[in-house]
Amino acid sequence: MGPHPAVAAIRLAVRRVLHDVLNELNEIPRPATGRPGTLRPGTPHTGQQTTAGRVATTERPLVLVACSGGADSMALASALAFEAPKLSVRAGGITVDHGLQTGSGLRAAEVAARLTALRLDPVEAIAVSVGRDGGPEAAARDARYAALDEAADRLGAAAVLLGHTRDDQAETVLLGLARGSGIRSLSGMAAVSPSGRYRRPFLQLDRQTARKACLVQQLPVWDDPMNADPAYTRSRLRHEGLPALEKALGKGVVQALARTAQLSRDDADALDAWAADADASVRDDAGLLDCVKLYALPPAVRRRVLRRALVAAGSPAGSLFARHVEEVERLITGWRGQGAINLPGRVEARRQGGRLVIRQG
Amino acid sequence: MGPHPAVAAIRLAVRRVLHDVLNELNEIPRPATGRPGTLRPGTPHTGQQTTAGRVATTERPLVLVACSGGADSMALASALAFEAPKLSVRAGGITVDHGLQTGSGLRAAEVAARLTALRLDPVEAIAVSVGRDGGPEAAARDARYAALDEAADRLGAAAVLLGHTRDDQAETVLLGLARGSGIRSLSGMAAVSPSGRYRRPFLQLDRQTARKACLVQQLPVWDDPMNADPAYTRSRLRHEGLPALEKALGKGVVQALARTAQLSRDDADALDAWAADADASVRDDAGLLDCVKLYALPPAVRRRVLRRALVAAGSPAGSLFARHVEEVERLITGWRGQGAINLPGRVEARRQGGRLVIRQG
Repeated sequence: MGPHPAVAAIRLAVRRVLHDVLNELNEIPRPATGRPGTLRPGTPHTGQQTTAGRVATTERPLVLVACSGGADSMALASALAFEAPKLSVRAGGITVDHGLQTGSGLRAAEVAARLTALRLDPVEAIAVSVGRDGGPEAAARDARYAALDEAADRLGAAAVLLGHTRDDQAETVLLGLARGSGIRSLSGMAAVSPSGRYRRPFLQLDRQTARKACLVQQLPVWDDPMNADPAYTRSRLRHEGLPALEKALGKGVVQALARTAQLSRDDADALDAWAADADASVRDDAGLLDCVKLYALPPAVRRRVLRRALVAAGSPAGSLFARHVEEVERLITGWRGQGAINLPGRVEARRQGGRLVIRQG
Repeated sequence: MGPHPAVAAIRLAVRRVLHDVLNELNEIPRPATGRPGTLRPGTPHTGQQTTAGRVATTERPLVLVACSGGADSMALASALAFEAPKLSVRAGGITVDHGLQTGSGLRAAEVAARLTALRLDPVEAIAVSVGRDGGPEAAARDARYAALDEAADRLGAAAVLLGHTRDDQAETVLLGLARGSGIRSLSGMAAVSPSGRYRRPFLQLDRQTARKACLVQQLPVWDDPMNADPAYTRSRLRHEGLPALEKALGKGVVQALARTAQLSRDDADALDAWAADADASVRDDAGLLDCVKLYALPPAVRRRVLRRALVAAGSPAGSLFARHVEEVERLITGWRGQGAINLPGRVEARRQGGRLVIRQG
């Protein structure tokens, strides 16, 4: 008799990602375009340098799981513990103590003990101090990734697995939608981060499957009270916003949002590539943007070219909103002699002799 | 003392659209790209043929409002009645009787009387018979637009104004999101239809402003019970889904959704244009799609080229889902000798000698 379907599902998801990691460790070179490269079969530990910047040593490669102790990441840890040895991969685990609740240190030690009980090795509980930049959720996330990056570097990990599910992805898309800043913010979380370090094996799996897998494997899980605290946007979305949307639109909403993320990501990538290409063709010999040439671009591409130029001049990407770019665009499409436009990061854009002059003051 | 701010807002929105209509009647030619053309100032009634297929006669041009008797379209009718004479435009009104409720004929006659009281002329109440294709909402819409098209043709109208507000747009984006079929379905309703006939002056205006404008102008309005009937998806979204989403994400959700619509529309247009360009470059001398060349395209463009080819071969656009296109795409990106793929409309796609052969059986 095989494992419970939920356990089979989480193991399959992890197995696929481990295969990807091993293939990429063994691959020369990793294609810059992000398109699937030609995968060369062979043993994963040949000691060659990969273009992702990792060195695959003659040791067995190490894959880490980032684990909060919640159902999603405990399920992930259990599947990694099961699959890794079969592929000669070492499996380790990291739990981050954000220090935001009393007893969080004890909690982290308990999660670490559970990871060790799953025979993960090495296992570390890392305490971080959370700042305030960008709100409580963003600050906690920044501290967490800094700790994971440090641990991955120090331990020479080939990858760090994250337990985000399709439900998390749907929530992320809705959070992006609320920003109203275009399709890049609808593209949610990547299955693989640009560096190749972070991987999300459960991005196509629903949260219920992860919970079920913990239940049938009798894995103790911890429900973070922050996840149910209506003070947090994501928590309100999870417990009120998404259920109401499902009630209005039908049960397929989570899948539709996850699919939207993938399609939007591909679309945004293609348009970014177009803008990068177009950038060179709309500049004069002095490297200034030519307004007539900008006018001839499709609006979607023109705005991306302008955004690139503003960020390159020093405007912080996170503070540069669609309305800023649109105001600069009106120097092209609605020119009536308007003056210089002031943008975040003390960047200024003005039209002068048919050229856009963008500089930091 | 000027008008109430809500009344000023609805009038400004209509004035802008009337200016656009007059400019376009007077413009040669209307640019095929949808980019703003060079607007030539001048009188609107020069009798010249426009590329939108309308003939501007020496008579004053006629603009119609489609009016259900609800607050949005009554506000629109009142603003049109106020602004049109100032621009030498004739203002008329059409109300469509869908025949779906008892007394709907009486209701339509009453709306027509209200439009006449606003001094619109001509005013017509048109009875239609609603079929069943695509569900009750789609069937009613199809019948309504057929009647509006017929009336606009017969009366020689330069444009038909529709009362959709920013709130309607937000709902439309969420309905598109629920389909999960990509950014085109997120792009909501157009401010101007491709033919230029239908215009939505209130697409940036909130529903509350339209209601307020009716209230302060003492215009009687009719609340369609269908709008509050939880049997309809849009009604559930309006009364439960969107409010819950606003509660979770904050009050800016409607604006963010409307902005997403505009950005998605521009992005989808640009990618469609790219796919149209790419189409020619990936075909061999016999006009067949070359798999190696398709492979080199960005995924977002490749899928659009494939979709175009499948629709051109006879697969109905409305039945051709993302998963169909993705299955055909795997003939390019995941080729392992798989057989022909059957698609809606008896269209078949197979890979043969490095080419895609797409035909209707």
